[in-house]
Order: sequence, then C-alpha cells, then structure tokens
Amino acid sequence: MNAALLEEKAREARKASLELEHVQRAVKDMALKSAAEAIAEHRCEILRANKKDIERNAPLLREGRLSKPLLNRLKLDGVKIHEMCKMIEKVAELDDPVGRTLYSVRLDEGLDLYKVTVPFGVIAAIFESRPDALAQISALCIKSGNSVILKGGEEAKESNRCLFEVIYNALVGAGLPAGCMQLVEGREAVGGLLRMEKLVDLIIPRGSNEFVKFVQSNTRIPVLGHSAGICHIYVDSKADPKKAVEICYDAKVQYPAACNSMKVLLIHKRIASELLPKIVGRLLLGGVRIKGCNKAVRILRSSGLPAEEAVEGDWSTEYLDLTLPVKVVDGVDEAIEHINAYGSKHTDSVITEDAATAQRFMRMVDSATVVHNASTRFSDGYRYGLGAEVGISTNKVHARGPVGLEGLVTTKYMLFGTGQKVSDYVGKRAKPFVHGKPSRTLNEIMA
Amino acid sequence: MNAALLEEKAREARKASLELEHVQRAVKDMALKSAAEAIAEHRCEILRANKKDIERNAPLLREGRLSKPLLNRLKLDGVKIHEMCKMIEKVAELDDPVGRTLYSVRLDEGLDLYKVTVPFGVIAAIFESRPDALAQISALCIKSGNSVILKGGEEAKESNRCLFEVIYNALVGAGLPAGCMQLVEGREAVGGLLRMEKLVDLIIPRGSNEFVKFVQSNTRIPVLGHSAGICHIYVDSKADPKKAVEICYDAKVQYPAACNSMKVLLIHKRIASELLPKIVGRLLLGGVRIKGCNKAVRILRSSGLPAEEAVEGDWSTEYLDLTLPVKVVDGVDEAIEHINAYGSKHTDSVITEDAATAQRFMRMVDSATVVHNASTRFSDGYRYGLGAEVGISTNKVHARGPVGLEGLVTTKYMLFGTGQKVSDYVGKRAKPFVHGKPSRTLNEIMA
Repeated sequence: MNAALLEEKAREARKASLELEHVQRAVKDMALKSAAEAIAEHRCEILRANKKDIERNAPLLREGRLSKPLLNRLKLDGVKIHEMCKMIEKVAELDDPVGRTLYSVRLDEGLDLYKVTVPFGVIAAIFESRPDALAQISALCIKSGNSVILKGGEEAKESNRCLFEVIYNALVGAGLPAGCMQLVEGREAVGGLLRMEKLVDLIIPRGSNEFVKFVQSNTRIPVLGHSAGICHIYVDSKADPKKAVEICYDAKVQYPAACNSMKVLLIHKRIASELLPKIVGRLLLGGVRIKGCNKAVRILRSSGLPAEEAVEGDWSTEYLDLTLPVKVVDGVDEAIEHINAYGSKHTDSVITEDAATAQRFMRMVDSATVVHNASTRFSDGYRYGLGAEVGISTNKVHARGPVGLEGLVTTKYMLFGTGQKVSDYVGKRAKPFVHGKPSRTLNEIMA
Repeated sequence: MNAALLEEKAREARKASLELEHVQRAVKDMALKSAAEAIAEHRCEILRANKKDIERNAPLLREGRLSKPLLNRLKLDGVKIHEMCKMIEKVAELDDPVGRTLYSVRLDEGLDLYKVTVPFGVIAAIFESRPDALAQISALCIKSGNSVILKGGEEAKESNRCLFEVIYNALVGAGLPAGCMQLVEGREAVGGLLRMEKLVDLIIPRGSNEFVKFVQSNTRIPVLGHSAGICHIYVDSKADPKKAVEICYDAKVQYPAACNSMKVLLIHKRIASELLPKIVGRLLLGGVRIKGCNKAVRILRSSGLPAEEAVEGDWSTEYLDLTLPVKVVDGVDEAIEHINAYGSKHTDSVITEDAATAQRFMRMVDSATVVHNASTRFSDGYRYGLGAEVGISTNKVHARGPVGLEGLVTTKYMLFGTGQKVSDYVGKRAKPFVHGKPSRTLNEIMA
C-alpha cells in the first residue's frame, strides 16, 4: 500500500472520528450487534477465506518457518467464530466508556469543573496473524467512540479482508460514519502509521517483544504496549501437589502460543525431588520439552525423565511452543527476585497453601497480574469481565494488564465559569476555593 | 555529579521505595505535616538561600539572558512560602491514592479478581528553576508511596539544597525510610536519569516544550509530559464585553510566565472593531505588546493603539513574557480549527453568552482543559482540588491536564484462586464465568 493511499485512509478515519465521538450509545450498540449477526451469517465465507490463508502458509510449517502454535492462532473454526460473535455482543452490552464524569467539583459559586471521558480519536492497531484479534479490536474501538486503522499479519490477509468487509458493512449499514474502520496492508504501512503523529492518537502493537520494542522506539505517538509474556509459576514447598500438577499442565499445554502461558517454572528446593517428577511427568504427556537448571536436570534424570540443560538465555526467552525451562529455587524470596529480574511484568503465579507466602508473592512481584493458586492463562480481558481485550499491557502508565474499554478513552477537563479571574483567588486577600459539589451535572449543562 | 554517585542515589531511592509502598497512610500524613512545619520554621534560612540564587542570577537579567518572568518564578517570598506549607498540608489531608480497589469481580466460585492501585516505585522529576515545584512534587510523590529523585534548575541551586534538607530531614525524622528523596545536580545528571530504565519507573520533565520533547525522544522510561502551553482565548461575537476585558487581562498579565497564561487571543470579526480596542487598551496598561494579524493591526491602529504585524511563527510560539499575538477569525469554527492546528492541547477558553457556541467549542477543541467564561489560569491541580500538581500533561495517555496524586499510581491485578485451570472454561463444555461480586474485600484477604 503506497504512502498516499495510507494517508488518505488515515484522513478518512480522522474525519469519521469527529462524528463517531458524538454517536449515541444505542446506535453504537445496535451496530455492534448487527456486526455479530453478520459474522454468523457469513461464517462459510470467512472460513473459506481462512482456509486460503492456511493453505498458503502450510508449506512454511513444513519447512519449519512457521510454528504449529502460530498456525493454530491463524486457524479459524466454528467454535472460534461463535466465540467471536459472543464477544462482540458482550462488548455491545458493556457500559459506554465515553461521556462518564469521573470527577466534578465546584471551585466557587458559578465556577464548576468536570472531568469527562472522551475517545482518543484515531487508534491504529498492528496485530499478529490471528483473525479473531481484528474482531476484538474493532469492537472495542468502535464501542469507545474511536476510529480504528487495522493492520493485521500478512499470513492472515484473506481472513482479515473478509472479516473486515463483513464487520465494516454491518457497522456502516447500521448508521456509523463511513470511514470509521480502515484496513491497511503491506509491511511498509507499519512505518507509515508510526510517522502519522497528526492523524493517529494511539498505537496498539501486538506481536513479539521485538516488534513492540521496535514500535516503541520508532514513533512519537503513544503506544499501548503488549509486550512479551515471560510468565512464571512458582511452586512453593507448601503447594498442594494436585493443584501444582494440574495448574502447570493447564498453563503450559492448553495454549502454549498465548502470551499468558507459563514460560518458566520455578520450584522450591524442599519439594522439588518429590513434586517436580510428578509435574514434569504430566507435562511430558502434553509433549513438553524440559530444559532445567543443574538441580532440576539431576532430579528428573534420576527419576528416569528426559531433561536438557538450560542456558542463561532460557530464563528470559518467550518460548511460545512446548519448551519449558525449569529452575529450582531456595524459596519464595529467590522466586520473587528471579521473576522481577528476568520476567516481563506480565502475569506470574504462586502455588501454595501458606497464606503468608502467598501474600508476600502477591505484594512483591512487580507484574501487571499476580495470581494465587490458579493458572496464568486466566490473564485475559474477556475472562476478567472487561468484555474483550485489545491486548495486555506491561506498561505501568495508562493501562496495565488486560486492556479493555477503559484503556481506549482519555479524559478532558471542562470548566464552566461566569467571568472569573485568577487574580481574585491569589495573594493576601485571596477568595478561597470552595471545592464542593456542583449544582448541575455535565449532561444538564451540555443538553 | 558523576555517574557512579547518581546511580548510587537511584539505588537508594529504589531500595526505599520497597518499604515506602507499605508505609501506613497515617505515618505518611504525619511526615508531610511535619515537613510543612519545618518549612515554616526554617523560612529565614530558605529565604537567605533563595536570595543567594537571586543575586547570582541578577546579572543575567541585566544582560538579557534571563527574562523577568523567569526570575519571578525563581524568587521566593513570605507569601509563596506560606502557600507552599498550606499546599503540603492539603496533600496530607487528601485520600491515600494507594491500595484502592478500583475493580473487583468474582470470575467463579473461589476465583476472585481485584484491581488495586500501587505506587510506580521511583519517580524522577526534572523541573524548572522554581523552588516551590520541589515542595509540590515531593509531597505528591511521598503521599503516593513513591521515592522521588529531584533534579531542579541550576539557577535555583541554593534554594533547592536548602528546601531539600528541610523537607527530607522532617520526613525521615517522622519515620519514612531513609533514601526516599534524593537531590541530584548538574546538567549531566539529566542524561544519566534518562538511561536508568531499571531503576526509574516514571520521568516527569517540566520546563520548555523543547526540553520535554528532548526528554521524550531520549528515554525508554515512561514520561509524564508537561509540554508547552499555547493557550488561547476566543472572544465570540456574543461575548459579554466586561468579562472579555477582565478575563483577557487576567489570563495574560497576572502571571505571564505560567504555562496556563493566554498565549494567543482570537476574536470574532463581527465584534472586533468595537471590542478589541477595549481589550487591548486594558492589556497595554499591563505592559503587553501586541502582535496582530492584518485585520487586528488595522483596527488597533485606527483606534490610535500600538500594534506590530504578527508573523506565521507567532501562532505557535509560547511567549512566556508580555508579548501577545492577536488574530481576527470568522467565527467559532475557525477558532476551533486554529486552536486544534496551532495549539498545544493544554487549556483554551471561550468567552460567549451563547450556549450553543460554548457547547460547540467545549466539545470540539481537543485540549486537556476547555473553559467557558473564565480565565485559562485556573488550569492548575491545586485550584482543581487535586491538592497540588506535579505538572500539566498534554498527553492523552495515563493522565491529561493538571496531574495530582491519581497520576502517580499505577494498578496491579491480583487474582486469588483455589486451583482453577483455564481448560475448564473453554470449548464446547466450558464452565461459564459468573462475573459477580467477590464475597471478601482485598483487605480481608491481605490482612
């Protein structure tokens, strides 16, 4: 896609955003519901397009240039399409994030301040080869009153084109402004979007850690970063063995390509000889390949289980396949230190029946989500009740953890006066600020 | 200050932050109150130190290398010190921003999620030569449980050293962890701080637009940007003439060096011939120098008032002195377009008695604060009831407008389970999420 066409699309998106900001909630929700219906209606078309993508990419899998879990993300089926529709409907049912008064204060008689949520304007999302991401991101952007420019992975090109057509036509057919969704293609579009400071208000990159870092260092536009998921499970000496085995299996095997799957297993030295073989025995049934520290390898081999030697780089590698580095630690403090040093501040879990150990872990691990006695895989906007997610942010600013609607709006202060000057409120005879409650709501003023 | 010493100070700050995060609210508040008392007690010492700064910098003023308004920011007096103490006391009285549960949801029986506010950790503030900024920033950082590294303007060196000693000794004397405040000096410290990704969680730069932009493009640490204040007042054809005259005078003359002072005046063509001479007549009494568009110059000169011709660059220059560019516009839409194109998204005001025009302006101007019939100078955290401010953000992410305590904390999700796996909640026989209310509060769990 050439630069002129890209800019034209961005301008259309910006123009639409000025209208979209003021579209009533009911109209947005009806439009989303009709998009969900349209996806269900056109499911055969969507699956056909997806099949073309799978067939085009299958040789890469055979040549080893594409991993099986990545192909799994790309692949759609009836269940995934059904989940996509349910997700859009759920977003439609969520409260409108726009126009909420977060703070209001009477500064003085006739001088009232309101802090209200407003859309960002135009959001550009650059995402991996996973067609359901297109539906999720679009639904959240539209619901939050933002125009969205979508750049999906090239491997999912046919699926994205088809899904985009279906969703966009449904939305515009239901009364949303033309141009509020834009699909752009080609790797050169990424660089173009990163330079559009005047037209794009927020960039959401999804994909590898390297890609997010690339985006962050190559744009002046704010980035809602979904970075690597080096997620840990720490199995404590007071862990319930059954929970440990089950949760580790779920966190690693259920969907290894997910950012919130377990990437490194830490286990307390006191319980390692007994419990590690049980955990690994189960993981091996799922096809997991273990890379252990010296102690872990010794324990596993003496139980007749296969294990390779881990290298330093393994502790900070995001294995999105069935590889799992395992380390034996002295206790919860070493686990916390290891996670804060090698992790990516995404999601980390502790398995223990000891309340004090759990609390220490929950307080001291500096990650977006900390979990006690459950799988790291729960870390997800839909599961968290946010409706859906545009990604999981490992930033500390703006939005941290799974990001749903609340991360897609910003705020604006509106101050309504009747002629007030600051000079009356400073110096020795300053009028005091009352900092009380305004007598009218913002809706009453703006009606 | 050499790099090794700088890093040592940053490490001390980080170490202190781990303790400070868990200090009880009452202890923090008592410590802040004793800091306010200490400032009042040591006021003579502080004023003496400030006098040294003023004397050292006075030659620069005479040589024209320092502007009068900048010297005014540097200069302390009894009133400013009194206001500083009151501000710290007010911050102590504010609600604790840490440990607030913003969202809680039961995902399923025995699986409860909490989103809780936590401090960032270590905040580095790099600010202009204005000693009261040191007190404000420190109070807000400590109240929000963050260690703070302070780098003030070199012109205020003596004042900063003295204020720092007084505040720090009072805080630590009242039980806060040693090292929670650090003062660093020398321009080379700025570059050092920008590289400390592992030790600093947030950077707050204050100062010129160029400086903030420099910081933003030279660090990977999140920046809470306080950028230029190209603030406008648009005087509509339906403006109340008295309000227009008074508010424009206040916004330009009361404190021209402030970021929220009026930088450009826009006026409706239909009222310009009559009202512009009145507004400018009053401004001239305050020593303002007018630079006008063609129409403005013609109107003013024909009334016998002095006016220079404005150049294109004037519309995007942050004149922190008494220079004021003035432009005649066709109406509210041209005003909105001009502000969105040339402004800095900081604070913009409309003077009109027409409700529809006011609403249009308030909705369509894309700035952190929009104001109706009051001075732009109200745009300030203290006046907004936030207690004090660390700066005014013109970013759309994280915190927009005057930033008080709520901008200095981040969030953490805490998920408490009893052995749950995601595999039970996906696929055809998926257990549903209940998304209800947890039976316990986070405080009950973490007690």
